[in-house]
Amino acid sequence: MTREVDVAILGAGSAGLFALSQVKRETDNYVLINGGELGTTCARVGCMPSKVLIQVAEDFHRKSIFEREGIDGAEELSIDIPAGMEHVQDLRDMFVDRTLGVTDALDEDHLIDGYARFVSNDTIEVNGEQIKAKSIVIATGSTPIVPAAWQAFSEDVITTDEFFELEDLPASMAVIGLGSIGLEIGQSLHRLGVQVAAVDQLNTIAKLEDDKVNDIAVATIGKEFPLWLGDAAVLEKVDGGIQVSAGDNQVMVEKVLASLGRRPNLEGLNLDATDIKLDENGIPEYDPLTMQVGDLPVFIAGDVNMDRPLLHEAGHEGRVAGYNAVRHVVDGPVEKFKRKVPLGITFCDPNIATVGLQLSELNKSDIAIGEIQFAPVGRALIMGKNRGLLRLYVQKSDGLLLGACMCCVKAENLAHLIAWSIQNGMTVFDMLKMPFYHPVIEEALQAALYGVLSQLDIKQDLVELERI
Amino acid sequence: MTREVDVAILGAGSAGLFALSQVKRETDNYVLINGGELGTTCARVGCMPSKVLIQVAEDFHRKSIFEREGIDGAEELSIDIPAGMEHVQDLRDMFVDRTLGVTDALDEDHLIDGYARFVSNDTIEVNGEQIKAKSIVIATGSTPIVPAAWQAFSEDVITTDEFFELEDLPASMAVIGLGSIGLEIGQSLHRLGVQVAAVDQLNTIAKLEDDKVNDIAVATIGKEFPLWLGDAAVLEKVDGGIQVSAGDNQVMVEKVLASLGRRPNLEGLNLDATDIKLDENGIPEYDPLTMQVGDLPVFIAGDVNMDRPLLHEAGHEGRVAGYNAVRHVVDGPVEKFKRKVPLGITFCDPNIATVGLQLSELNKSDIAIGEIQFAPVGRALIMGKNRGLLRLYVQKSDGLLLGACMCCVKAENLAHLIAWSIQNGMTVFDMLKMPFYHPVIEEALQAALYGVLSQLDIKQDLVELERI
Repeated sequence: MTREVDVAILGAGSAGLFALSQVKRETDNYVLINGGELGTTCARVGCMPSKVLIQVAEDFHRKSIFEREGIDGAEELSIDIPAGMEHVQDLRDMFVDRTLGVTDALDEDHLIDGYARFVSNDTIEVNGEQIKAKSIVIATGSTPIVPAAWQAFSEDVITTDEFFELEDLPASMAVIGLGSIGLEIGQSLHRLGVQVAAVDQLNTIAKLEDDKVNDIAVATIGKEFPLWLGDAAVLEKVDGGIQVSAGDNQVMVEKVLASLGRRPNLEGLNLDATDIKLDENGIPEYDPLTMQVGDLPVFIAGDVNMDRPLLHEAGHEGRVAGYNAVRHVVDGPVEKFKRKVPLGITFCDPNIATVGLQLSELNKSDIAIGEIQFAPVGRALIMGKNRGLLRLYVQKSDGLLLGACMCCVKAENLAHLIAWSIQNGMTVFDMLKMPFYHPVIEEALQAALYGVLSQLDIKQDLVELERI
Repeated sequence: MTREVDVAILGAGSAGLFALSQVKRETDNYVLINGGELGTTCARVGCMPSKVLIQVAEDFHRKSIFEREGIDGAEELSIDIPAGMEHVQDLRDMFVDRTLGVTDALDEDHLIDGYARFVSNDTIEVNGEQIKAKSIVIATGSTPIVPAAWQAFSEDVITTDEFFELEDLPASMAVIGLGSIGLEIGQSLHRLGVQVAAVDQLNTIAKLEDDKVNDIAVATIGKEFPLWLGDAAVLEKVDGGIQVSAGDNQVMVEKVLASLGRRPNLEGLNLDATDIKLDENGIPEYDPLTMQVGDLPVFIAGDVNMDRPLLHEAGHEGRVAGYNAVRHVVDGPVEKFKRKVPLGITFCDPNIATVGLQLSELNKSDIAIGEIQFAPVGRALIMGKNRGLLRLYVQKSDGLLLGACMCCVKAENLAHLIAWSIQNGMTVFDMLKMPFYHPVIEEALQAALYGVLSQLDIKQDLVELERI
């Protein structure tokens, strides 16, 4: 007999759990189906353990400024890698535990350990049982990409899903793929004393579209350790390790970190049994405002849809998917919800961040660009972190802030201030009327705002003041 | 013969220079009169050198987390104080140089080295010359307070005006007065190995009005070095140093840092010769929206008016005073300008910050308080800085954010996000719809916002989502 539920959620990661939070408000007749280990990508192998590693590496690396500050003994510092990794794992375990609270509270009627596959648009099968659902939420996440050619020496290739399990680090490592996670881990490894070769076939890092910011980022980070850009890495198993070649560069390393991105976990879902239409990348076509797949009783949220693979966006998408999945049950129309202003942060040093619209989405003749080099920024100079660049994309006609791109100290915080300003519809004139304390990194934003004024089609006489 | 000018600005500090920037746009017939050394309080003895000292002390102190992170050798680190102070002074000199650009460009007709005194409402005298001005801007700044009783051993009492000149630090020091500057320097001294006794006659530090935040601040900072609160310090010169007593506490120190606040530089101005009315504290009565003193052709800006002694407020006040001073020349009515949302930051560790309205300005029955302890905040935990408290003051009737008070990591950045939100008129519902990346300290703000929802008179069903 087929079991019938209101909502079936496939995947108990971040997006699935956020969807569940909405579903539970309306019905108890739901099922959460999870294949493999519980615990979110974010807590297990993503945001959280990477930040711990970065923190340890950054604290150790800070010794490079000690001499200028009159602090003696930097040369006596050393890093005990196994102790450092144990610290990473201790915190990681704690963060994972926190995410398990929700699933721990579910009984076996609500939580099924298994991999679901579609039987039809509204029915799935898991562990041999068929479940018919009025709505289905796909939130199955993603898996690191490892090229087939590397299977031959897969024991030497580590993905980010495995990296944080290491008890010790290899003496040398190639990091292939310099998106956020590759950059973050690559720089940290270098700072912890691992011989790092970092490779990307693109000439950009962290997916930067702004050449000027990319140039500063590559120059600043590439001064610390070599970045081989513009050529694909070719790996070859040789005696004693892996030979890595990229263009004219060549090195032998003990291990390879594959940070080439992630693919959606769709393969086992048997989507062929449904009317789901796939786009050119094989992703179900869905409305990002409702998270509904076509006009089916199916919703998709989180990393599996390959758009904005970030925890806070998984939260948004999960909530929308869960809310609309439950509304669909009572036969209500699905509702559209505004997306948040895009916000991406790479926690390398200096941070790289993008906010709002990027250059490829903007018409260059319509925008003015406000720019600030960090060299003279007082607080950055005091911190010894005054290499960087912030660029603001501003609508020429009215001064509306549209987007920003930056590589600089505390970009993670600046990016929030900028993202909120964009989401609030602020112009550069509005922003210049806000308080900027002194001396703070936010003053760099202020300088970039001033820099854009002369390029705008409109002028204000007293930009910092607001008449009553 | 009396020289006649459009505008006379008394004081070439931050406020005076900002006033000048407005005045110069309209007239070349002005005079800037400065007594004593050029260079702003901020750059010479305030914001800037204190931040360098704090940075050195914080970098040195960070060794306390090394063991937990697997970094060995912390015990080998030592601080070379003269080298550290030289670094502070090097950067300080550079920041001072930057502020001198404006005055360096002025000839002797525009810049007079001397102390001005009023002869009448519109005439001043400096170096024996009388100058009649259509408008006068008072921007003479302030001077550290040193009690008369301490004159007997004044060679052992250092003010913040002198502190950053020290080539070495004493082995022990009493810090009397735990406002922002006392706290910042006191904690830094302790971290650099100076034996510090920190005293304030109040039971609060950094002028905190919120007892809960004050309790956390006192507990956290007081764990590092002793804070003697609630009793006035009594100093006595004894063999080998100064005996400091406060209540039951007593210690002998080499030197005393007097950080008891600053008094306005009004004494030499001969205000008796004018119709300027003084308030109960001896400060000219003025309109904070126009900066005009009574209905006289006199304006007052910056630290001398004893309201908001902060660089960014000196900038605001200077601009308004300068703008209105020049308008007054052409007989235009003065204009009123909105004040910025109040923002105060103490750069101790953890930071202390206040934003917007504080408890004494709020009616407790009208507000709900959102609160977050930092102990479980993921990113703070990773940084090893998860002691702290953030409290939000929210209007119960509609969820409007009115103010905030906090002692926590990165409060300097959170305070900007909160101040801008308040100045934008955001409610907690508006704020929860903004992007909060993960894992960032801004998530603590998010948690505090969630915490206030149940206490409000109104509810929203989907607080994080915005329908289209």
